[in-house]
Amino acid sequence: MEFSLPAGFSAAGVHCGVKKGTTKLDLSMIVADSACVAGGVYTQNRVFAAPVGWDRARTPSSQIRGVVVNSGNANACTGSQGEQDVADMARIAAASVGADADEFLVLSTGVIGELMPMNVISQGIAAAADVLGNDETSLINAAKGMMTTDNHHKLAQVTVDVGGGRTVQITGLAKGAAMIGPNMATMLGVILTDAKLSENDAQSVLSSAVADSFNCISVEGHTSTNDTVLLLASGNASTQLLQGAQLAAFAEGVRQVCIELAKSIPNDGEGATHLIEIRIQGLACREDAYLIAKSVADSALVKTAIHGADPNWGRIVSAAGYADVEFDPQAVRLFLNGTLLYEQGTPVVFDEVSVSDSIRNQRVTEIDLEFGEGEAGITFWTCDMTAEYIRLNADYRT
Amino acid sequence: MEFSLPAGFSAAGVHCGVKKGTTKLDLSMIVADSACVAGGVYTQNRVFAAPVGWDRARTPSSQIRGVVVNSGNANACTGSQGEQDVADMARIAAASVGADADEFLVLSTGVIGELMPMNVISQGIAAAADVLGNDETSLINAAKGMMTTDNHHKLAQVTVDVGGGRTVQITGLAKGAAMIGPNMATMLGVILTDAKLSENDAQSVLSSAVADSFNCISVEGHTSTNDTVLLLASGNASTQLLQGAQLAAFAEGVRQVCIELAKSIPNDGEGATHLIEIRIQGLACREDAYLIAKSVADSALVKTAIHGADPNWGRIVSAAGYADVEFDPQAVRLFLNGTLLYEQGTPVVFDEVSVSDSIRNQRVTEIDLEFGEGEAGITFWTCDMTAEYIRLNADYRT
Repeated sequence: MEFSLPAGFSAAGVHCGVKKGTTKLDLSMIVADSACVAGGVYTQNRVFAAPVGWDRARTPSSQIRGVVVNSGNANACTGSQGEQDVADMARIAAASVGADADEFLVLSTGVIGELMPMNVISQGIAAAADVLGNDETSLINAAKGMMTTDNHHKLAQVTVDVGGGRTVQITGLAKGAAMIGPNMATMLGVILTDAKLSENDAQSVLSSAVADSFNCISVEGHTSTNDTVLLLASGNASTQLLQGAQLAAFAEGVRQVCIELAKSIPNDGEGATHLIEIRIQGLACREDAYLIAKSVADSALVKTAIHGADPNWGRIVSAAGYADVEFDPQAVRLFLNGTLLYEQGTPVVFDEVSVSDSIRNQRVTEIDLEFGEGEAGITFWTCDMTAEYIRLNADYRT
Repeated sequence: MEFSLPAGFSAAGVHCGVKKGTTKLDLSMIVADSACVAGGVYTQNRVFAAPVGWDRARTPSSQIRGVVVNSGNANACTGSQGEQDVADMARIAAASVGADADEFLVLSTGVIGELMPMNVISQGIAAAADVLGNDETSLINAAKGMMTTDNHHKLAQVTVDVGGGRTVQITGLAKGAAMIGPNMATMLGVILTDAKLSENDAQSVLSSAVADSFNCISVEGHTSTNDTVLLLASGNASTQLLQGAQLAAFAEGVRQVCIELAKSIPNDGEGATHLIEIRIQGLACREDAYLIAKSVADSALVKTAIHGADPNWGRIVSAAGYADVEFDPQAVRLFLNGTLLYEQGTPVVFDEVSVSDSIRNQRVTEIDLEFGEGEAGITFWTCDMTAEYIRLNADYRT
């Protein structure tokens, strides 16, 4: 698929040296031609990074000119110096395109507890501002500049027909491969669109898309200090605000882009060999379905069983059982890759070898859990847990 | 240390063949000379095994004659046949010592979802009844007969002075090495004593000891279907019920035995190379301290960092931050093996090499987190997470 920046935006990604001993890109800028509308959704961790505080205070807004992103340093647990540094990053990035500090948002990801190397950041911002472009390479470089332990850069894009012969474009960039728990994680996302939106609509469309996407993924359940998803709307595609059915179609497009980006994170999870899609149905309310999905997704025993191509339904059913949700175990049905493994409180006779083969031979493992308690459901994504995950995380800093 | 059975009990452990392809012990019996008082604490998983249902319906009691335990099969998710099988196990074990089915409790641990091999169980009960003894070897064999993936059998014992020149003995057996979450796990414990207790006191002493011990451990946070801790009191040490200060001294003894057994479980955690002791202080209430301790203990990122001897305080502080407890990050202080790593929202300069060496060279890693919110605290135990854990759990059944 070819990707492009929606009208009204330019982007760049450069290597400036926040990441040491490598030439990988580590600083990105996304710049709007003129003031755009922006919404944001942030980590729920009580220990949050300085850039989260900066952005949260400035969204929703209709006066945003751009975003500066660095990888390699999270600017988290850095005290008042960290707050000063994020303000300086915003000021320097804004100045490079003739804007004010308050018009720039900042995203940081990487190691916690080290002060931002402001010298190399300043040089990086100058270098990025020099090469801002609106071609595909500039967009891909911006996505690469966000990456930490990601193996792949992450982009998703849709064009939405909003009626009257008009279309709007939605293009998303994201990063994340570990420390991914629901309620966000070391996960950054930027959704760009040329749609014209009100501040309130930008915020509510983003919030509801994130609820079904970035908040429904986990790698190991660890909610990070830095998670942020931003939506920036340039308005270049139209002179009129989206509303009614047009707004609903747009919202569905944002949801699709967010889900595609969100799934790509556990799919690229550290050491992962399987993306696990967990579909929960038949609960009394969405919150119940969410709690059960999260309990199954975060179970190291479920994740290691899938890694071992073991259709170990007992681990799945028991993980649902400790989610602190009332349900009748006799009414539960469990399918793995479409094969019924469990119903009426007892295992079902099934071909273990064939189900095991289906796990082994497919990148995606599908777990369907049905309850007889109501009509609510949810879909959640995680990855398997491997020895490579342990190796990566035991050796991260040393 | 030498262990012995408290007065009034005999025990045995045999191999009968529930565990296939091995000669490891897999069936144990603990028998009281006459009716004894018993309390029980059980898994909070909504999907619970047949023996849990059987025992829960029969405790507290003053009419218990014994416990039969098998490893290798959990009798969980086995439907009505499983309920029939646990009743038969109780009946056969009780008959072997001249008691009624309702006077026997049953503990099972092992694979979920397979029917109990009742032929070999019957033979095992007969063999165990034949070799019941009150020597140390019989006690150790009973502890071994509970083991699944444990590397070591687990025993703890104290003698408590209850005044007036009298002592009572408390001896505990336990098993567990994985699927260990707080609120119990594939963890079985039996605490035996010759103290004389009322039913109510037996239950409340056990419940409060479990709250500070078996409910404060985790290996990977997975709460199993089978967890059970029983307290059996023969009353042989005295003719009078323990009460007042004597009862308090006894309760403290049970707590000590439970903590020692509980710690031995993550210390023997699958693939573990470190026991991690997490001490949380300065919260408004015990529940807040518990939530934070559990969040840190269950973090795969914390557990892999300790495995890598990495004093990665950022992972610890951020795990506390997503525990859904209100606190001021500026007031947090973190010590690792006694060295201050973090306070006032910022890292502290410390000797990373020396702290890393202290992790690498000690079996126990001590994490102290202090909050400025109040007077409540808790101690919690977990283990590090290693590639060996992944290997064991990816290959458990296949």
